[in-house]
Amino acid sequence: MEQQGEQDAYVKKGAEYKRDMNYIDTRITKDGRDGYAVEPGRYRLVAARACPWANRAVIVRRLLGLEDAISMGLCGPTHDKRSWTFDLDPGGVDPVLGIERLQQAYFKRFPDYPRGITVPAIVDVPSGEVVTNEFQQMTLDFSTEWTDYHREGAPELYPERLRAEIDEMAHRNLTEVNNGVYRCGFAGSQEAYDEAFGRLFTRLDWLSDHLADRRYLVGDTITEADVRLFTTLARFDAVYHGHFKCNRQKLTELPVLWAYARDLFQTPGFGDTTDFVQIKQHYYIVHADVNPTQIVPVGPDLSGWLTPSGREALGGRPFGDGTPPGPPPAAEAVPPDHTPAAWT
Amino acid sequence: MEQQGEQDAYVKKGAEYKRDMNYIDTRITKDGRDGYAVEPGRYRLVAARACPWANRAVIVRRLLGLEDAISMGLCGPTHDKRSWTFDLDPGGVDPVLGIERLQQAYFKRFPDYPRGITVPAIVDVPSGEVVTNEFQQMTLDFSTEWTDYHREGAPELYPERLRAEIDEMAHRNLTEVNNGVYRCGFAGSQEAYDEAFGRLFTRLDWLSDHLADRRYLVGDTITEADVRLFTTLARFDAVYHGHFKCNRQKLTELPVLWAYARDLFQTPGFGDTTDFVQIKQHYYIVHADVNPTQIVPVGPDLSGWLTPSGREALGGRPFGDGTPPGPPPAAEAVPPDHTPAAWT
Repeated sequence: MEQQGEQDAYVKKGAEYKRDMNYIDTRITKDGRDGYAVEPGRYRLVAARACPWANRAVIVRRLLGLEDAISMGLCGPTHDKRSWTFDLDPGGVDPVLGIERLQQAYFKRFPDYPRGITVPAIVDVPSGEVVTNEFQQMTLDFSTEWTDYHREGAPELYPERLRAEIDEMAHRNLTEVNNGVYRCGFAGSQEAYDEAFGRLFTRLDWLSDHLADRRYLVGDTITEADVRLFTTLARFDAVYHGHFKCNRQKLTELPVLWAYARDLFQTPGFGDTTDFVQIKQHYYIVHADVNPTQIVPVGPDLSGWLTPSGREALGGRPFGDGTPPGPPPAAEAVPPDHTPAAWT
Repeated sequence: MEQQGEQDAYVKKGAEYKRDMNYIDTRITKDGRDGYAVEPGRYRLVAARACPWANRAVIVRRLLGLEDAISMGLCGPTHDKRSWTFDLDPGGVDPVLGIERLQQAYFKRFPDYPRGITVPAIVDVPSGEVVTNEFQQMTLDFSTEWTDYHREGAPELYPERLRAEIDEMAHRNLTEVNNGVYRCGFAGSQEAYDEAFGRLFTRLDWLSDHLADRRYLVGDTITEADVRLFTTLARFDAVYHGHFKCNRQKLTELPVLWAYARDLFQTPGFGDTTDFVQIKQHYYIVHADVNPTQIVPVGPDLSGWLTPSGREALGGRPFGDGTPPGPPPAAEAVPPDHTPAAWT
C-alpha cells in the first residue's frame, strides 16, 4: 500500500497525513461473484519486500502454503513518481506478466486509473489486468477463499470464532500504529506530528501491557492480527524511529514488544520474508521530501533480531493444530546479506 | 562553532563535509600581546545552549568559576541565514552589548568579515568588537590565562604534565567524533556518509575500550578532553542518532560511553549547562536541507540521564585537589522543563 501515483511530495505543509483508503475492492472468491474465481495458477501477487502492507500478503501466502497456487512478482525497493517497477528482474520485465511497471496492469483494467499505484496488488495473468489492491481484504481472502489450496498443516489465521476480536485489534493497530508511523513521518505541522506521536506510543504502551502475559494478540495462536502488527514492528528501528521521528524509544527499548517481534521474526514465514536492506532503501530514497540527501543509514545494528525471545515460556501454540511452513522456495528467499546475519 | 554565514545549504551534493576551520585567532592573555589583556568585566562570552562547541566554553567557565569575571550572553537556538540572534532577551537585544545579532560584533571589528558567524565568540564590551571565535584556544585560555580569577577550588582542566596527552586525545576526538557526527549528517554522497559513519563508530568503540576501566579520558581527573567529548555525547541520542544518521547504536546502547556520559552529566557544570529542548530545536529547525519539515521530534525519552552511572567504582577524583562548583547563578540556570526532569 506504499502509494505512489502522480504525487511528488509525501508531506503536505500544514496538514496532517491522510492515507487515501480507496482501493480496487474486487474480490477473488470461490464463487467468482466479482468475475474472478479462485483458480490456481491464474493470479500473480505483485509485492515489494520493502512495503509493510505488501509484506503482510507475502507472509500470509507463505504461512498458508499458497506459493504454488498464486505466483509472486517482486518490485524493487525504490520507484519513480509513476509506479513501482520490476527493476530486480532480468531486463527489468516481470517474467510472467511481461511488464516493466506495475502501472501497466492498473491501466490495462482502468485506463484512467487516478489513484496511487500500490503494492500489494493481484494481477489476473491471462488478461494482464489488476484485480485488487485492497490489502486488508486480500489476506483475509487468502485465509478464507483459497482454503482448497492451503498446504497441509496451514494455520487458521482468521478463525471464525475470533474474527470480531481480530478485526477490532487490527483496526486499532491500523489507525494508531501501522498508519500511525506514517502520520508521524508525513505530518505537515508540528501539531499534527505531536498528536500522531502521542497516539502511536499510547497504543504501543497498550500493546506492551496486552502482550506482557500472552504470546499473541488474539487467542493463543498466530492470527492475521499478529501478521499485521509484525510488519510495522519489523520496520520500526530500521526506518520509523529515525526517518519518521517515532523516537520515544527504539523497539529494542520496549522489552515486551521487542520480545514479541523477535519471537515472530524467528517463526518461519516472518523473518524469512523480511529484507532489511530493501526496507531501508525504500523509505530513505523514495521519500526525498523527508530525506533530501537520499542517503541510507548504515545502522541500526540489527543482529538482536536473532537473539532468543524467551516468549515460549508464555505458552501459546504458534500454528494451533497446524505446523510451520518449510523454508521458502529458493527463488523467493531473502539474500543472507539483507538479513540480520549481515550485522552479526 | 555552529557556522552560519551566507550559506543556505549544509549539505553539498556529491561532496564530503569539510568544516571551515579558519577562526579569528586573537587571544586574550595575561600579557595582552594581541591587544586584549585579561581583565575582569571587560569581556562577554556569547554562546548558545544548542551548540556543542559553545557548550564547551560554558562548561569550562562554570567549572573554573569565571562567571563574575566574564559575563555571558546567550543566543536563541535557531538563527537565520545571517547570524545567531539574541531573540531570548527582552526586546531581542543583548542587555550588555546592545545588539540584536552577533554578526554586528563581528562586523564592528571586521566590516567585511567573510566567514560564518559562529558561537562561542568573545566580545570586547567597551568596543563592541568580537575578539575571538577560536573555540579550541578559548577554553584553554580560560584555564591558563585567567588563573587570577578562577574560583577557589577550581580544577586543573589542562595540567601541564598532561597537555600532550590531552591534545592528542582531543584532536582524535575532534576529527572522528565531534566533527565526525557532522561529517555523517552533512555528507553529500552515500560514499562520504559511509566513510564518516565507519570512522565515527571505530573511534567510539576505541573510546569504549579506553574508558572501560578508567573514569576519565586522561589522568584520573576531569580535563579539557572530557569537556570536549561530553558535549557531543550529550547530543548523540537527542539529535545525532536520527538527524545525522549516526545510528549504529544509540548512546544508551553503548554501555561504557553511556555510563561515562551520565557520570559527567551528573557532575556540576555539565548537565546543568545542557538544554535538551534548545539542542533539538537548533538542529531540526536550522538544518532545513536535512529536515525540510523542520519538525522537532518529541523523543527520545531522556530520563535515563539521571540514573546512577556506577562509575565512582572506578576511582578517579573528578576535581583533583579542587572542589565542584556550586549551583549556577539563577539567571544562567537551564529551565527545569528543558532538562531530563521533563521526561521523568
